[in-house]
Amino acid sequence: MSIVLTHHAYGKSQIRLTRVTRHADRHDVKELCVGVQLEGDFAASYLAGDNRDIVATDSMKNIVYVLAKKHGIGTIESFGETVARYFVQTYAQVRSATIDLVEHSWQRLVVDGRDHPHAFVGGAGDKRTAIVTLTRQGIRVESGLDGLSLLKTTDSAFTGFVRDAYTTLPETGDRIFATLLSARWLWGRTPADWDHAYHAIRRALVETFARHHSLSFQQTIYAMGTAALETCSEIEQITLTMPNKHHLLVNLTPFGLDNHNEVFVATDEPHGVISATLARSPG
Amino acid sequence: MSIVLTHHAYGKSQIRLTRVTRHADRHDVKELCVGVQLEGDFAASYLAGDNRDIVATDSMKNIVYVLAKKHGIGTIESFGETVARYFVQTYAQVRSATIDLVEHSWQRLVVDGRDHPHAFVGGAGDKRTAIVTLTRQGIRVESGLDGLSLLKTTDSAFTGFVRDAYTTLPETGDRIFATLLSARWLWGRTPADWDHAYHAIRRALVETFARHHSLSFQQTIYAMGTAALETCSEIEQITLTMPNKHHLLVNLTPFGLDNHNEVFVATDEPHGVISATLARSPG
Amino acid sequence: MSIVLTHHAYGKSQIRLTRVTRHADRHDVKELCVGVQLEGDFAASYLAGDNRDIVATDSMKNIVYVLAKKHGIGTIESFGETVARYFVQTYAQVRSATIDLVEHSWQRLVVDGRDHPHAFVGGAGDKRTAIVTLTRQGIRVESGLDGLSLLKTTDSAFTGFVRDAYTTLPETGDRIFATLLSARWLWGRTPADWDHAYHAIRRALVETFARHHSLSFQQTIYAMGTAALETCSEIEQITLTMPNKHHLLVNLTPFGLDNHNEVFVATDEPHGVISATLARSPG
Amino acid sequence: MSIVLTHHAYGKSQIRLTRVTRHADRHDVKELCVGVQLEGDFAASYLAGDNRDIVATDSMKNIVYVLAKKHGIGTIESFGETVARYFVQTYAQVRSATIDLVEHSWQRLVVDGRDHPHAFVGGAGDKRTAIVTLTRQGIRVESGLDGLSLLKTTDSAFTGFVRDAYTTLPETGDRIFATLLSARWLWGRTPADWDHAYHAIRRALVETFARHHSLSFQQTIYAMGTAALETCSEIEQITLTMPNKHHLLVNLTPFGLDNHNEVFVATDEPHGVISATLARSPG
Repeated sequence: MSIVLTHHAYGKSQIRLTRVTRHADRHDVKELCVGVQLEGDFAASYLAGDNRDIVATDSMKNIVYVLAKKHGIGTIESFGETVARYFVQTYAQVRSATIDLVEHSWQRLVVDGRDHPHAFVGGAGDKRTAIVTLTRQGIRVESGLDGLSLLKTTDSAFTGFVRDAYTTLPETGDRIFATLLSARWLWGRTPADWDHAYHAIRRALVETFARHHSLSFQQTIYAMGTAALETCSEIEQITLTMPNKHHLLVNLTPFGLDNHNEVFVATDEPHGVISATLARSPG
Repeated sequence: MSIVLTHHAYGKSQIRLTRVTRHADRHDVKELCVGVQLEGDFAASYLAGDNRDIVATDSMKNIVYVLAKKHGIGTIESFGETVARYFVQTYAQVRSATIDLVEHSWQRLVVDGRDHPHAFVGGAGDKRTAIVTLTRQGIRVESGLDGLSLLKTTDSAFTGFVRDAYTTLPETGDRIFATLLSARWLWGRTPADWDHAYHAIRRALVETFARHHSLSFQQTIYAMGTAALETCSEIEQITLTMPNKHHLLVNLTPFGLDNHNEVFVATDEPHGVISATLARSPG
Repeated sequence: MSIVLTHHAYGKSQIRLTRVTRHADRHDVKELCVGVQLEGDFAASYLAGDNRDIVATDSMKNIVYVLAKKHGIGTIESFGETVARYFVQTYAQVRSATIDLVEHSWQRLVVDGRDHPHAFVGGAGDKRTAIVTLTRQGIRVESGLDGLSLLKTTDSAFTGFVRDAYTTLPETGDRIFATLLSARWLWGRTPADWDHAYHAIRRALVETFARHHSLSFQQTIYAMGTAALETCSEIEQITLTMPNKHHLLVNLTPFGLDNHNEVFVATDEPHGVISATLARSPG
Repeated sequence: MSIVLTHHAYGKSQIRLTRVTRHADRHDVKELCVGVQLEGDFAASYLAGDNRDIVATDSMKNIVYVLAKKHGIGTIESFGETVARYFVQTYAQVRSATIDLVEHSWQRLVVDGRDHPHAFVGGAGDKRTAIVTLTRQGIRVESGLDGLSLLKTTDSAFTGFVRDAYTTLPETGDRIFATLLSARWLWGRTPADWDHAYHAIRRALVETFARHHSLSFQQTIYAMGTAALETCSEIEQITLTMPNKHHLLVNLTPFGLDNHNEVFVATDEPHGVISATLARSPG
């Protein structure tokens, strides 16, 4: 019996990058958090401390800043590809480069009814994400969003589930549906406009959430995923993960009061988690 | 020498409360996190474990839910006063009740260009806050906001500061100004409309931030506080706290590149903190 | 083109469980956080809101508490198996049950030099973990630890790495090596004593970290993984992930002072991440 | 009516500092997080952007590192005083300097039964703290600890409290007592040995917690504070804050099972908070 190194990877995480584009009449700003992970012929460092093929993670950070200066950000998808290509094309020992990117949104402030040229306020809580993986065989781009808070005060039921000795949850025809959506979709083709496609998918997810008369979280997640796939023909697969941010009806009976779905306590622990992956089928 | 109990207080924190108001054509939703702290004649419990004057913190939680059911929330300021009055009026042993409230904003979703009757999305990152303190002598209401992300890409300088043996920071006529504003203002009189007053103050803070040509964080904080006091005559004092969320210019010189305020690294640690309290003077 | 559901799972997360065993002369306490995820024949709920095969996540929580009462915890590995078996054996629609468990350690207090029978203090920062996956074909048990802070003030070098146009990091023969280790190992056979095996593996990791003269993080990670595999013959594979918690030497030259590896600033962002998986080979 | 600046302060937070002392036979390591806040004649910067009396917060950071190099850390109390004195003695415009310090503990690793000369593991979860405030009139030193997890599985009751219309909590003669202690004590005189005094106070708090037969959180907090004051004659006042980290008995009755204080669910929200300040009285 001997011991073998079956997998290894290394890189830099949490490279924070703010890129300002200074136009004559206004500034634009992008704020990202970037991670780089490389796989390749690095075994000598693990086995013998021989670092001659190791690109220092500090250099990875420098490269991200240099590329941001030279090329701007554009979108996280396009910038991620630029970064990934740099590593794969420059270093023969790199077999794959995975770039993950999270964008923190800044919204231009409106002052006196007009867009301000260089002042911004933090945007919505959800963050736009991308993961770009480039190998010598090809590229894979996944985009997504994280942390989108959604809540409906009605149009959500949960009935007809398994009832046995350990079931105490009552059936309900009317409950709060609250979640913190994470979504990730895989591109089959590059869209004409990454930003336009992103906003179309986000809108499809949110509007389906609002409109859907839910018989279960599972059913709603499927409806949302279907809407995303129908909205954007360039994506071939989508994975949605939705915690059930339980809002429990407060029992006011001891105080002689009814509670017709008016007073709830939101709880974080424990919470349900429901996920699904939907894909196009040739059928 | 003996030992004396010089101060004591107790209460319940993190009482999460979601209150839905079910109108015929739409639902409204408020989501709060409430804390209750009582001071009064509770020394017997500390000194002897005699709990006869102790209102259980579990009962405090019940009371918050009952009052939310009976009276609705209205605003956090009015609900805070309702809760505080309950404790002071009901329990003779209570000398003061301090209710702190944080509101998590939900924004009504717009679907097909119309307000949706019962679906909501998480709002901006900043939270509206209130602290209501009621004693047998009177009431004190402070309102505020926490966690408002603001950023300007120019119109911020920092020059002319102390230069001595331990100064390495260069002067700058043009830097990023980024912060996470906390503000708290004290009401001298009750405004006609808590919500209207809140939004006017928030707007004054944000617009002054955007317009101000800053020579120092200190100067901007003073301008923002002044604007709030000028905007809303019912507040008599305001305290602003602004971390300097440093965005450091990345040094690209080693790579043969200039960096004309285009590529920055945002850092959380260490960070400056600047605060000020402004008040009206009879002068 | 149609749309298909290619993967789905659901369950309950963050089930917090404190289990006290009340012996005549002392109490023992275990505190866990448990997650349950099921895969199986649940498509009807996704496609049609038909919940007849859905075990409510609330019932999962009940089941965890009932099993903890009936069987005690023992170890997280054995309790995880008990929980997983319950779901697979009870519900025909369940194809696999994955139970993840995190143990928060409590250490018995020593008072007057003696073990106290029922008072405890929070233990070390690292947490013991297990993931048990049971299918109709078999069981897979992974154990691990998360968040183990380790630091060496010397015996760590990093030289001979790639130097090119984007390299600014100097070589160093002496730096701080600090990390927050996560480890996860896969059991090939069940050990005689889960606790004994855990502590032996943790000790092998920690002592190898201490003793190793490091030429790179990669080399140290490999040495640590090797030591774990050599220490415990029942594990067949181990994955280690080590962020490089950079401690940067503070430049005191502007102040006329040397800094012979005495004053450092610890930084969280950005940070390197190095990982490796080692396995036994029949070779 | 005019507007006046009634209070202002500024400084640097989160200055992370790791100080290694390299002895011939071993290294010692201290890791701190330091904050500096200055009050004084800084109004010109607020009112007019005139920064000539402003010490840049970046320079504050440099000063902390320089002082750590020159003087070492010793204890957080002594280092805090060194830093505070530097600011007050160097800058005439400084009226008071407040230095807050948090120490992250590292424990020397034991390898083969012997103390390792330069390898360390992260210590207990609680952190040692100090706040040193120096004015031209004198010094005030407070020390403390934060985040000390304590749990007792019995010897805690809560009975005889107010029962009225909004009371649903049952009385209990036996419950889990769990908390996350914060303590802060004020020094009347400088102790002979800061470290020795710290450990004596911490031990008094912990052992009293263990031994006390608790009739209420309030009573236990008072007993713990009394023990600290009795243990260390140099402290003149202590403030303790203890959240009640509720461990709720799981109701197993629906499943035909008793639960004799064996299975609990720990909850973070809502939670009780109990605090008290005890001082010596000349009486």
